[in-house]
Amino acid sequence: MYRHQELSTYLSHIRLAEKKRIQLSDFDTEAAFKYINKNKGEDLLEEGIKQLNISQDKLYAHNRFGVLIVFQAMDAAGKDGAIKHVMSGLNPAGVKVHSFKTPNSLELDHDYLWRHYLALPSRGDICIFNRSHYENVLITRVHPEYILKEQLPGINQIEDITDSFWQQRFKQIRRFEHNLVENGMVIIKFFLHLSKEEQKKRFLERINNPQKNWKFSFTDVTERKYWTAYQKAYEDVISETATPDAPWHIIPADDKWSARLCISAVINQTIDKLPLTYPILSEMELLKLKEAENILLSE
Amino acid sequence: MYRHQELSTYLSHIRLAEKKRIQLSDFDTEAAFKYINKNKGEDLLEEGIKQLNISQDKLYAHNRFGVLIVFQAMDAAGKDGAIKHVMSGLNPAGVKVHSFKTPNSLELDHDYLWRHYLALPSRGDICIFNRSHYENVLITRVHPEYILKEQLPGINQIEDITDSFWQQRFKQIRRFEHNLVENGMVIIKFFLHLSKEEQKKRFLERINNPQKNWKFSFTDVTERKYWTAYQKAYEDVISETATPDAPWHIIPADDKWSARLCISAVINQTIDKLPLTYPILSEMELLKLKEAENILLSE
Repeated sequence: MYRHQELSTYLSHIRLAEKKRIQLSDFDTEAAFKYINKNKGEDLLEEGIKQLNISQDKLYAHNRFGVLIVFQAMDAAGKDGAIKHVMSGLNPAGVKVHSFKTPNSLELDHDYLWRHYLALPSRGDICIFNRSHYENVLITRVHPEYILKEQLPGINQIEDITDSFWQQRFKQIRRFEHNLVENGMVIIKFFLHLSKEEQKKRFLERINNPQKNWKFSFTDVTERKYWTAYQKAYEDVISETATPDAPWHIIPADDKWSARLCISAVINQTIDKLPLTYPILSEMELLKLKEAENILLSE
Repeated sequence: MYRHQELSTYLSHIRLAEKKRIQLSDFDTEAAFKYINKNKGEDLLEEGIKQLNISQDKLYAHNRFGVLIVFQAMDAAGKDGAIKHVMSGLNPAGVKVHSFKTPNSLELDHDYLWRHYLALPSRGDICIFNRSHYENVLITRVHPEYILKEQLPGINQIEDITDSFWQQRFKQIRRFEHNLVENGMVIIKFFLHLSKEEQKKRFLERINNPQKNWKFSFTDVTERKYWTAYQKAYEDVISETATPDAPWHIIPADDKWSARLCISAVINQTIDKLPLTYPILSEMELLKLKEAENILLSE
């Protein structure tokens, strides 16, 4: 637990940038910072959003890096709200949000990374995966029968899905991300870490609010039975796929304001480290500009 | 010219919702409203953006309509800026912006509407076409040699591209849009109407501003030679494709603030007319919710 720390120190604790065994119980679901209460936090978040706007502009002008932001979490952890609040200030021309649902038959007919590959950011863009390729080692881990739908050669029954199958998948994901980073993509991964108690509270709120009750699905409650299995699956995934290229961040998610503050700070920190510059024209291009100016002025 | 009118009266003048011959010289490139100066206009725009945010939320919850917003204009008319300023307050999860560039070889291998079809909004979403399927009757009208790249049967030389070819294309576009509207899509089309003098001023500004000069392309100046041909092409396109289903709006674009104000007002007006409601659960669904609540409470 890393409570009562300054924000930047706090972020360094929740950032996992190497393949190493972790336990989720070692991480906060509720953050408490030194000097930052909710009011102050909301001000800082607003500043962070403004800064992100400037970063986006530079990213777009520089046009060499693309940023991929992965959001994973248990239901009701606040993924949608975080995306809405942290990203709403941005120019939508440079942001794409992809919400991955149950794969359809065209998607199942391809390898499991295919649909995620298609959705990757262009250079200059920020792309958000609301759920992601990680579902292929999370929900399928808890419900391995879903893997059978992929029609993989040699995988004919649940018993064929052994531990080495999962190890191979983790490796595939590491390779996939490594390739992307080597080609100018920047990957930021968030796990929104929610307590089981807070999930229950949020579900009950949704059920009893007529403006929100249509968002509630009965399966949300039945999936809660697998809480421990999911936590274990997340521990494995984060342990196996945290790399310097594509670090995970375990965001305390029981308080929405502090979760959003951490998320915006991590994104800003990451983009700030990129060598972004506005394009500088060559001598030749400047001459060409001069020529264009002369044509316009002599009209 | 419709200057010194109230905003809503003004908008009704610049909205074209039937197939009818128009001349662009009959429309303002500079708007002046009754009671609204620049300061007041910027306040109204801010309100408009907030209102759009609420509309987007309803659109998303209702999940039956998709909104397609088309932006067409001469270079430097302010399409990118308008998209950035009017749309930046929205939740990016429900907005997609597609900037259509020169078609690539995969796109040319399909009919010209194909790449636009692929990019259409999902229900609940707002989708912006920054340039659109209309380029196929605009830039190609001024440079008909581009049509030859489509490898259309029977179109082997420029002489094959007759007036009836263009009439056929207008009809195809009307059919395409009609089909969409009949299936729950809402189409709003903007032409940003810029004066030739204002374009020159903006080009010179770009050339002389080191933070912007990399955005300037020499072809912007050479395309200016075709100004009259483009204006004529726009007149034809708007005259032929303004329909009650998919009206055009001729936005005065010489002042950025008033252009953006008109755009946000038109979008809000259009979405406001839709019968949007939050989903209401059935008796059965409410019982199911109650059951979920009981499971959670008895944990």
